[in-house]
Amino acid sequence: VPVASNAMTDQLDLSALRPMVRAWLAEDVGRGDVTSRTVIPDGTVATARLEARAGFTVAGLGVAGLCFEMAGEERGGVEWDPKVEDGHRAEPGATLARVAGNLRAILMAERTALNVFARLSGIATLTSAYAEKLRGTKARLVDTRKTTPGLRVLEKYAVRVGGGSNHRHGLDDGILIKDNHIAAAGGIGPAVRAARMNAHHGLKVEVEVEDLAGLGEALDAGADIVLLDNMSVDEVRSAVEATAGRALLEVSGGITLDNVEDYARTGVDLISAGALTHSVHSVDVALEVDL
Amino acid sequence: VPVASNAMTDQLDLSALRPMVRAWLAEDVGRGDVTSRTVIPDGTVATARLEARAGFTVAGLGVAGLCFEMAGEERGGVEWDPKVEDGHRAEPGATLARVAGNLRAILMAERTALNVFARLSGIATLTSAYAEKLRGTKARLVDTRKTTPGLRVLEKYAVRVGGGSNHRHGLDDGILIKDNHIAAAGGIGPAVRAARMNAHHGLKVEVEVEDLAGLGEALDAGADIVLLDNMSVDEVRSAVEATAGRALLEVSGGITLDNVEDYARTGVDLISAGALTHSVHSVDVALEVDL
Amino acid sequence: VPVASNAMTDQLDLSALRPMVRAWLAEDVGRGDVTSRTVIPDGTVATARLEARAGFTVAGLGVAGLCFEMAGEERGGVEWDPKVEDGHRAEPGATLARVAGNLRAILMAERTALNVFARLSGIATLTSAYAEKLRGTKARLVDTRKTTPGLRVLEKYAVRVGGGSNHRHGLDDGILIKDNHIAAAGGIGPAVRAARMNAHHGLKVEVEVEDLAGLGEALDAGADIVLLDNMSVDEVRSAVEATAGRALLEVSGGITLDNVEDYARTGVDLISAGALTHSVHSVDVALEVDL
Amino acid sequence: VPVASNAMTDQLDLSALRPMVRAWLAEDVGRGDVTSRTVIPDGTVATARLEARAGFTVAGLGVAGLCFEMAGEERGGVEWDPKVEDGHRAEPGATLARVAGNLRAILMAERTALNVFARLSGIATLTSAYAEKLRGTKARLVDTRKTTPGLRVLEKYAVRVGGGSNHRHGLDDGILIKDNHIAAAGGIGPAVRAARMNAHHGLKVEVEVEDLAGLGEALDAGADIVLLDNMSVDEVRSAVEATAGRALLEVSGGITLDNVEDYARTGVDLISAGALTHSVHSVDVALEVDL
Amino acid sequence: VPVASNAMTDQLDLSALRPMVRAWLAEDVGRGDVTSRTVIPDGTVATARLEARAGFTVAGLGVAGLCFEMAGEERGGVEWDPKVEDGHRAEPGATLARVAGNLRAILMAERTALNVFARLSGIATLTSAYAEKLRGTKARLVDTRKTTPGLRVLEKYAVRVGGGSNHRHGLDDGILIKDNHIAAAGGIGPAVRAARMNAHHGLKVEVEVEDLAGLGEALDAGADIVLLDNMSVDEVRSAVEATAGRALLEVSGGITLDNVEDYARTGVDLISAGALTHSVHSVDVALEVDL
Amino acid sequence: VPVASNAMTDQLDLSALRPMVRAWLAEDVGRGDVTSRTVIPDGTVATARLEARAGFTVAGLGVAGLCFEMAGEERGGVEWDPKVEDGHRAEPGATLARVAGNLRAILMAERTALNVFARLSGIATLTSAYAEKLRGTKARLVDTRKTTPGLRVLEKYAVRVGGGSNHRHGLDDGILIKDNHIAAAGGIGPAVRAARMNAHHGLKVEVEVEDLAGLGEALDAGADIVLLDNMSVDEVRSAVEATAGRALLEVSGGITLDNVEDYARTGVDLISAGALTHSVHSVDVALEVDL
Repeated sequence: VPVASNAMTDQLDLSALRPMVRAWLAEDVGRGDVTSRTVIPDGTVATARLEARAGFTVAGLGVAGLCFEMAGEERGGVEWDPKVEDGHRAEPGATLARVAGNLRAILMAERTALNVFARLSGIATLTSAYAEKLRGTKARLVDTRKTTPGLRVLEKYAVRVGGGSNHRHGLDDGILIKDNHIAAAGGIGPAVRAARMNAHHGLKVEVEVEDLAGLGEALDAGADIVLLDNMSVDEVRSAVEATAGRALLEVSGGITLDNVEDYARTGVDLISAGALTHSVHSVDVALEVDL
Repeated sequence: VPVASNAMTDQLDLSALRPMVRAWLAEDVGRGDVTSRTVIPDGTVATARLEARAGFTVAGLGVAGLCFEMAGEERGGVEWDPKVEDGHRAEPGATLARVAGNLRAILMAERTALNVFARLSGIATLTSAYAEKLRGTKARLVDTRKTTPGLRVLEKYAVRVGGGSNHRHGLDDGILIKDNHIAAAGGIGPAVRAARMNAHHGLKVEVEVEDLAGLGEALDAGADIVLLDNMSVDEVRSAVEATAGRALLEVSGGITLDNVEDYARTGVDLISAGALTHSVHSVDVALEVDL
Repeated sequence: VPVASNAMTDQLDLSALRPMVRAWLAEDVGRGDVTSRTVIPDGTVATARLEARAGFTVAGLGVAGLCFEMAGEERGGVEWDPKVEDGHRAEPGATLARVAGNLRAILMAERTALNVFARLSGIATLTSAYAEKLRGTKARLVDTRKTTPGLRVLEKYAVRVGGGSNHRHGLDDGILIKDNHIAAAGGIGPAVRAARMNAHHGLKVEVEVEDLAGLGEALDAGADIVLLDNMSVDEVRSAVEATAGRALLEVSGGITLDNVEDYARTGVDLISAGALTHSVHSVDVALEVDL
Repeated sequence: VPVASNAMTDQLDLSALRPMVRAWLAEDVGRGDVTSRTVIPDGTVATARLEARAGFTVAGLGVAGLCFEMAGEERGGVEWDPKVEDGHRAEPGATLARVAGNLRAILMAERTALNVFARLSGIATLTSAYAEKLRGTKARLVDTRKTTPGLRVLEKYAVRVGGGSNHRHGLDDGILIKDNHIAAAGGIGPAVRAARMNAHHGLKVEVEVEDLAGLGEALDAGADIVLLDNMSVDEVRSAVEATAGRALLEVSGGITLDNVEDYARTGVDLISAGALTHSVHSVDVALEVDL
Repeated sequence: VPVASNAMTDQLDLSALRPMVRAWLAEDVGRGDVTSRTVIPDGTVATARLEARAGFTVAGLGVAGLCFEMAGEERGGVEWDPKVEDGHRAEPGATLARVAGNLRAILMAERTALNVFARLSGIATLTSAYAEKLRGTKARLVDTRKTTPGLRVLEKYAVRVGGGSNHRHGLDDGILIKDNHIAAAGGIGPAVRAARMNAHHGLKVEVEVEDLAGLGEALDAGADIVLLDNMSVDEVRSAVEATAGRALLEVSGGITLDNVEDYARTGVDLISAGALTHSVHSVDVALEVDL
Repeated sequence: VPVASNAMTDQLDLSALRPMVRAWLAEDVGRGDVTSRTVIPDGTVATARLEARAGFTVAGLGVAGLCFEMAGEERGGVEWDPKVEDGHRAEPGATLARVAGNLRAILMAERTALNVFARLSGIATLTSAYAEKLRGTKARLVDTRKTTPGLRVLEKYAVRVGGGSNHRHGLDDGILIKDNHIAAAGGIGPAVRAARMNAHHGLKVEVEVEDLAGLGEALDAGADIVLLDNMSVDEVRSAVEATAGRALLEVSGGITLDNVEDYARTGVDLISAGALTHSVHSVDVALEVDL
């Protein structure tokens, strides 16, 4: 029995997000919210409700809350009261959270909070659709580095919330030898061996190959993981057989909701899909203020 | 004859983007690119080609270039040679730019450069599809504040490249009185008059209304711009007649590629669409390294 | 009846000032207050009184308080208890606030707090003298961008406290076409029309003219506001007549306490004066510590 | 013969000012200069002339130049060509510098450059008026910590340019025991001795006294410098005699252009005046663009 | 044949060190070098020589150069001309580099440059003494996270220069399960399995054990690497036999120059020593200025 | 009787250390502690004990506490309960502090806290050994600028805790004219006089000399302090006699635990030793978690 699921053990560290949220608020607010401060009497307080306008998988609710709370700091405070947890499937009309406090602060944070929350929930919703297809197979769904610049930690979190796993978080915490590295090193074998010798001993060596011949070279050189790039389902099936458990196998390239299950049934260990983060529709969500 | 088109007069200020690009590179690179520095011999140089893999409107090519150039600084340099300009319609297979220099630096920047460029070109491509529908009408297509946190200046630029115009850039450079402001101020009239009195004299007052009665109140209070929220095409047509040029009219809410032309033909001045920036598919583009 | 006076609706956001105050304290304190830490026993607590030494209009009392409070953070705390509000007319000898807490922290903040408060109160005091002259006319007294680098938001706030209004806050939230823009664009008309076409629709177009001919051109081109630069009182009177309400009129250049009332009586809408912020005498104020 | 005059040996370190200038430009420019970018065609180049509109002592010309140069970076460049040096006495109409380059960049920097230069020259001009009064006496004119928050290094530089000397630069590079320290330490003697024992051996001990009795205590305790606070000219004369060279004497409080010479003739070593920096009139200067 | 040695493939990225060097210089220089600017005439240029005063392994010469170059920026420049490379064994009296340029800038950087260089060379010298002992064995000498806060990247670089290898660079790029993790997870087996399931697939799982029973549990749970903590040489020999190549074995705790060779001869794969970075003697080096 | 001992009057300002501690934690934690978050269940709480493993002088306990507290912020909190004070002599096995709270946060801070605390205590321990030798003489033991870049304020604090005094804190708060300054200024006399004239009046002038002739020149020029560089005990004794109290005398160069007492007995005022901070052995200390 696992100690904990992936999403649960690797929560967002909201404290670390504060500088980012501060920059987001500054981006939207600039010199100040000219509408609120000229129209809404100072000191006006209100309550509001975050409402789902469609069905989706909730992700990033705490980040939305942080936006409101930070806007409220030293403006008399804004209280954030979430009604569901990340990973929850929201139905249209559902109340996701309540906000209460200084109205100017609430409106100052509104757009930023909705923008980030709607995008993260969009990622989780899409990921869960993919993950559903893998049920019953041994394959793990993993993301890629095709994330929005500045938002990687959040977008990778949303993938976990949706039931996916993360690949390496950046260029520094995992080795992935691609075609250009191979060409520069003089072949798959030399590249794998150079990584093994020069990187620290706690990192596995993953290498990308384009055919079964490349797979053979990679296995001979002692690769720990082999990424099968843009191979057909049949080719992947052959690769699984040829490997016989000597390395982990990852499939990547051209993965869609339509074909992901076929790939999963080949017995491959990992399937990565860039679309989880690079082509996302923000979900429909709104803030309803009570006055 | 206009002095210049909007996109041309309001270029990106690349120098101002340097801290942002530095943060993006740091997000991906972290403690260093462990693969390149263990596999690729130090000092290896190479050339590469940025290639379109599908047809799209190019936007943000300079930002991609900045990613490569900054990664190359003090690593012997990376040269960026763009082959097209933003706003160009690229065909599949087209060469968009050439890159030359330190291979480790090129690979360090690759993912970040592609991530941002593919997103901005996706926005421009979508915007140009909307803008095409407005041709021959007096309506201006404008964006919203539904942008990705941290990327507003870039995403609004991509909208301009695609043929749209920008609405206000944030809460500080334009007045837009919405339902919550109206409720807090005690009605459309008091809200409009408070903004007029308290804001600086160079800002117009825009107010959102939901029906023709609201439009009347707004016009009576002296609003400069009225946003017609979620109204049908017929209602908008009535609003245009009722206004008779006394204020600018903006349509917002539920705008799609299918209905945008109908709204434009009502004689409205402005049409805003959140989808331009909140639900974007990154375009397909790749970096081909020659070794 | 206005919803609220300008100064009241547009309070200082003290939380946003924290990084600035931190930098000010660092500028004065550097490696540490060598006198206090070598002479005053650690843990000494005291109370003090901020006292007016002359008559003036109070402005920036909250900023002074923030200096003390921030110096006290993690040094056992400093409590700030203001006795009057910004906008109050203080008489010599009046107690403006009380401070209590760690004496080293109080002395660390003293000079910084007094420096900023004395300057802001100087601005408010000068502004109120000008504003007094406009009483009974329709003219609004406005400031300029001739502020001390780094202190704009505070100095413009002090102008409001003194009874003035703010012009645009920077180059980004208002359009003001001056002689150089006109020359570059090829005339008043082309300049006004370019701004109208290229800027977002929520901004009015203001243009500076030097004579009545220029005023005519500006009105013909559809300028929303015309700035009459360095014109005599008689010329301004003619301009008001010629304009007949088609645009707002602003007078600027050579405004003094002696002539401001004459300008105001011409019927002009706005009068701007750089002296409000660029030639200010700090008021006389002191901190009296009780030991 | 001195190695060098004070102003010459202690030039401004312009490189260290870059972050400050960047913040100043950001304060004025915000999201961008909406007027220039909508009215002036991209790529327009121009030359301009910085012109004195009154007679004054030039100070901070290099800072003004840095504003222009930094605005020009990555905008095609702005060249700065100063025609006089700091310390020069400018006559009305004199050309102080020439600027050439991208017109949008020049206008982006104009206000910031003028604001800081006009203030610094105002300080130097006022200082030189005081310094003139001290000619022929042994007294040194020194500034105080009553500077504008954020501008200390510049304002103290302007004092040097005007012929004054600097007191300590902050709380960390000089000891000045004031009344509150004395009260907390239990008297002048204990305070002076505590400073001597606890501070590093390279710092002199200065202590403020209010009468001749205090002076005696200070001398007995071994003070290196005694500040005579708010004493009359006669009292200061007595203090000079009583001290007989055993310590440096500094006069402070109530120093004006009218009485400074009388104080100087008492034989005191140092005279400090807060007015040099806290009540300054910016000089009249303008940028004339040639188009 | 290896592609490259570890030190060569993983050079310091000097560009990334610039903010750190700027902070170091600021720490030493503060408000400015009061001695140089009052004693050395502005514009004085000089040359200087970095000289070894004892025998040692050179490490960090480029960092020292960066200190001088950055101090020289916008002060007329300082040129740095290294005469040896990192890894070189310097003899007493050897010239390591030459510096030329503005004398004030050279002296401003001197202490900082020497402080960091002397420490890094101290680390490399100590490491090479350990590494020498391992010659002829299969054991790799690795460092720990017992580095000076703020200097990890440099200190780990110096270890490589001295012939050692790096362990993980931080808590994020390698898994090392220690006694506290084991206790919290409920045993070695559950801990290893939780890491395997929840961490990304590119990371090996290393676990610390204190005896052979723990080693057995770790191997059964599928640990990739086992750290043998504070075991005797005999125990380690038994562990190597018991493991029979099923996992990498690392020895840690109590490693000294006297016993490191005995541990290496047991056949263990890795030996880590905190002393390489936590108890270092700076080497003797000086800057000789020619005037 | 002194008001207070040096260490007591000049406590560390922990609030000022927060940005530094944040950077240290980031250096170690990077993208997150992959071991703890995959192995330790979220929300696990624990208590721990900081234990001395050897005898040493405690210094920096508050900094260690700050590391734990900051790691605990917004992770449910970590409480720090110190059991001894800085300056205490700890025996092996002694409990120095207790920590309680979120286990992941405790482990996140552990290494950083121990690294800095062990180094500072190492400095204090070494300093106290030197200081012990000076007991009964008038000489003050002082440190140098040979500190670890980034840690000066802490390392100089540790020297005070160990019973030493601080020399100047940087280049800005004390004048020390060395051989290069003398050469550039044209001799000891001109250098001393230039410093006296150009520096602010609160700084003493210290100058380094290499022999008795130099001492004579320095005294003639009015130096306040003379540093005797690398002189023998006998030479120092002669210098003390020759000076006869006209200036403070500081000995520097080649000071060891073996000879420091001999130098102290010459009657010199100050003895400075670089070894106090540049060649330090971290003390042995560990964190014991109770689970």
